[in-house]
Amino acid sequence: MSMMLAEIRQQPDVLERTLRLELRGVEKLKKKLTAQRPRYIVLAARGTSDNAAQFGRYLLEISTGIPVSLAAPSIFTLYGASVDFRDALVVAISQSGESTDTNLVLERAREQGALTVGITNEAKSSLARMADHTFLVRAGREKSVAATKTYTGQMMMLYLLAYALGGAIRLDDLRRIPSWAADALQLEKEIGALAGRYRFMDHTVVVGRGLNYSNAFEFALKLMETCYVVAERFSSADFLHGPIAIVERSFPVFLFAPGGVTWPSMRPMLEKLHQAGAETLVLTDRSNPEARALGRHICVPARLASKGPLPEEVFTPIPYIIPAQLFAAALAHEKGLNPDQPRMLSKVTRTL
Amino acid sequence: MSMMLAEIRQQPDVLERTLRLELRGVEKLKKKLTAQRPRYIVLAARGTSDNAAQFGRYLLEISTGIPVSLAAPSIFTLYGASVDFRDALVVAISQSGESTDTNLVLERAREQGALTVGITNEAKSSLARMADHTFLVRAGREKSVAATKTYTGQMMMLYLLAYALGGAIRLDDLRRIPSWAADALQLEKEIGALAGRYRFMDHTVVVGRGLNYSNAFEFALKLMETCYVVAERFSSADFLHGPIAIVERSFPVFLFAPGGVTWPSMRPMLEKLHQAGAETLVLTDRSNPEARALGRHICVPARLASKGPLPEEVFTPIPYIIPAQLFAAALAHEKGLNPDQPRMLSKVTRTL
Repeated sequence: MSMMLAEIRQQPDVLERTLRLELRGVEKLKKKLTAQRPRYIVLAARGTSDNAAQFGRYLLEISTGIPVSLAAPSIFTLYGASVDFRDALVVAISQSGESTDTNLVLERAREQGALTVGITNEAKSSLARMADHTFLVRAGREKSVAATKTYTGQMMMLYLLAYALGGAIRLDDLRRIPSWAADALQLEKEIGALAGRYRFMDHTVVVGRGLNYSNAFEFALKLMETCYVVAERFSSADFLHGPIAIVERSFPVFLFAPGGVTWPSMRPMLEKLHQAGAETLVLTDRSNPEARALGRHICVPARLASKGPLPEEVFTPIPYIIPAQLFAAALAHEKGLNPDQPRMLSKVTRTL
Repeated sequence: MSMMLAEIRQQPDVLERTLRLELRGVEKLKKKLTAQRPRYIVLAARGTSDNAAQFGRYLLEISTGIPVSLAAPSIFTLYGASVDFRDALVVAISQSGESTDTNLVLERAREQGALTVGITNEAKSSLARMADHTFLVRAGREKSVAATKTYTGQMMMLYLLAYALGGAIRLDDLRRIPSWAADALQLEKEIGALAGRYRFMDHTVVVGRGLNYSNAFEFALKLMETCYVVAERFSSADFLHGPIAIVERSFPVFLFAPGGVTWPSMRPMLEKLHQAGAETLVLTDRSNPEARALGRHICVPARLASKGPLPEEVFTPIPYIIPAQLFAAALAHEKGLNPDQPRMLSKVTRTL
C-alpha cells in the first residue's frame, strides 16, 4: 500500500485532533479579532496549501463579509513592492512551514502593520516561529509527496478561522466533519474498481464551483502529480467562457456537483458536455437526485443536515475531496506509478 | 484571412486611440482618487477580460501599493453574500459590457459603498451605464469570438488606471506601447512558418511569471479556443509545486521570458525542463541573451528602454502577447480550424 493511501485513511483522526487541540487558541484569537476586526484578509500559499487557500477565500468572504484576496508572492519576492497592510489579517498556509516565498510575504506583511496567522503541520518551522498566531494541522508527519491529510486539515483550520472572525459557522457542524470524512472513506473499494476504466486517460478537465472550486484544483493537482495526467481545472462559468471548445467525443470531465446553490450552474454545463459526447464522472450525494440521474457518478455518503445559517453545501468540500484523493491513488496504482515519489518532485519546494 | 488575424493587426491603432481618447477622463478620475485614495481594489471579469484583470492585479499592486483582489463572482451571484466595500475601488472589465455576473458584482459593490469603474468596448452597454466612471477600449467592433485587440486595449486601460491611482507610471512609456505593438507584428511571417511544427500538438503548458503570468493564461486560452489544444497555464513557481510531474520527453512547453526581475526564476525552470527532455519555445527579446542561448525562441523586437522608476519588464506584456496571438491564429490555420467561430462558443457568454 502506498503512503498516500495510508495517509488518506488517517483523515478522520487528523480532523478530529486538529479541531480538538486548536479550539482553545482559536477562542483566544476570536477575542482579539472581535476587538480589532480586520479590514481585509490576504491568504498566502503555494501548491496544495494554495488550493486550501482558494477554499478559504470563498469560505471567509461568504461567512464574514470581509474582502479576501490570494497573495501573488512575486509582487514581494521579485518586484520588491511594498503594499499597505494596515488593518489587514495576513494568513500564511504551508505544510512544512518552510516555503520561502510564502514566509517572505508574511514577513513583509508584519513590517507593513498586518496581524499575521500561520497554519502549518510543523510546530518547529520558520513559519510557526514568525507568525503572531500559529495554528497546527495535527496531521503527524506527511511522508507522501502528494499531500492529502494536510489539505483537509488546513481546510478544517480555515473553518475555525472563519469562526474566530465571527463568521456564521457553528462548532456543532465542524464536530461532525470527521465522521463525514469516515463515511467518504467507505468508497475506497468502489473507486478502486472504477479506476481501471481510466487506465489510458492522458488528459482531462475537472470542474467545480464556489466552495468546491478549490477541490477542482486539488483533484487536478493529484492527477498531475501522481498519475501524470494533463489535468485542467475550471469553474463552470470560466469553462464556458472559451476553454470548453477543447471538448470532443469521449473527452473525460470530472465534476464536483453537490446539491444546493451551485447545482443550477453545474446542470446546464453537464448537459452541454453530454451534447458534445464528453464522458463525465460526477461527484455528488444523496441530496442531489438530479445529478445522480445524469450518468456515471460517485455518491458521497455523508449526511450533512446542518441546522446553521449557511447552506449545507458549505460543508461538502472535505467529504467531497476524499473520493477524489482515493481515485488518484487508485489510478496511480493502475498505471503502475508510485504516488509517494512523483518524478521531478520533492516534499519541500523552495521558490522565490 | 480570419477576422482574428485582421483584428490582431489592428492593435497598434487600437492602443494609440484608447490612450489618446481616454486620457482626459483618466486625468479627471486621477483628481478624484488623489482626494479619496481607495483602501483596496477589486477587479471583476470573466474569460479574456479576466486575464487582463490578472495583469491588472499585478500592475496595480506593484505600482500603487494598494492591495488588489480578483472577485469571485459566485460569492455574490450564488451565495448572495454581502461584502464590506467601503473605501474600495471596484473595477469591472468586459468586452461586451453585458457579462451578467460581472455586472452583478459591480451592482452589489455600489450598494455596499464602493467607487466603481467600468472598462468595456461597448459605449451603450449595461456596464457603461452602471459604473460611476466608464472607460472605453477603442477597439471598434470585435467580430472574432477569440478576443485579441480588446485584451491589449484593456491592458492599456489598466496602465492608465495605475497612472490615475498615482502609480509610478510615466505617460511617455505608455505613448510608446503602440509602436512596440507594431514592431511585434513584424513577426507574423516567422511565426507562420514555425506553426507547422506544432500541427499535431494536442496538449501543452504555458508558463509565465509576474506581469506576464496573465499572458500565460491568455495564450493558453487562445490555444484552447482556436486550436482545441489542451493548454495548461502556470507561474514557474506553481509549476514546480507539483504539476511539473506531467512533463515527459517531447512535452511542449511555451515560456514568456523577458529579461529583468522574473528571469532568475524562469532560467532554472527552463533548465529543469530541458533535463526532462521537454521541447521548449521561449518568448524573449534582445535584452535577454541568456534566454536566446537556451534553445528555440521567438525574439520580440520591441526596444523598451523606459527611463521610469519601474523595471522595463513592466511594459513587456503587450508586445509579448502579440506573437502568441499570431501563433494561435497560424496554428488554427495549420489545423484547418476557423478561429473566428470555435465550436460551442458564442461572443457574449452569460453566466451566473
